[in-house]
Amino acid sequence: MQFKDRLKFDAQGLIPAVVQDAVSGEVLMVAYMNRASLEKTLETAETWFWSRSRQKFWHKGESSGHVQRVREVFCDCDADTLLIKVEQTGAACHEGYPGCFHYRESGGGVETVGAPVFDPATVYGQGAGKD
Amino acid sequence: MQFKDRLKFDAQGLIPAVVQDAVSGEVLMVAYMNRASLEKTLETAETWFWSRSRQKFWHKGESSGHVQRVREVFCDCDADTLLIKVEQTGAACHEGYPGCFHYRESGGGVETVGAPVFDPATVYGQGAGKD
Repeated sequence: MQFKDRLKFDAQGLIPAVVQDAVSGEVLMVAYMNRASLEKTLETAETWFWSRSRQKFWHKGESSGHVQRVREVFCDCDADTLLIKVEQTGAACHEGYPGCFHYRESGGGVETVGAPVFDPATVYGQGAGKD
Repeated sequence: MQFKDRLKFDAQGLIPAVVQDAVSGEVLMVAYMNRASLEKTLETAETWFWSRSRQKFWHKGESSGHVQRVREVFCDCDADTLLIKVEQTGAACHEGYPGCFHYRESGGGVETVGAPVFDPATVYGQGAGKD
């Protein structure tokens, strides 16, 4: 069976995709793909998602240059989640951190881990899309 | 703000949780938590999910002994996804593999990566819950 035909998309036609840095192993982000964005991802070897908030394709890094080069694409045993291993250009998080998971639970509260590697205001500018 | 109050649960009261092996960095699985299962996870330092198919709490490893000891809990910048770093006892996947993402896209098809580390029939038995 073809990889795409194995997958179980949800009622909205979406499947969650965990994006992991192929070099460091850091989990960078989770976003959603539909069948067409997965096809674009496989064809271009860069990540394309479906933005649920904007209801449109989201080519990660399109304006910032922080694209994700796809190394490997996996699905899980239930075929309802993707894992994409990538080479991340720049950083994944729109807040300037390498990845999006920089808020850690600590004694019930929250602490920020790590530090930004770029200034979002410089990269995205005022009002620009945070891609 | 408390960590739990920061989170954005979806319309079903759920939030996806990526579970990563704290030692190897392998992404083991993705499952869903509600507020109560997150509280149980933080209180017991073992993972508790909400099973969408069975509509009940799912204490990972409860019958198999393959529990996940929680090392760190993170949320992402949008506060709509969790990342749980764990020490995995045994293996995470009910098919016997260390993690659930062992189906890799290859030229449009699927190839299986890695090998099982336990026999599901032995661990779970006939008809037993795959926890």
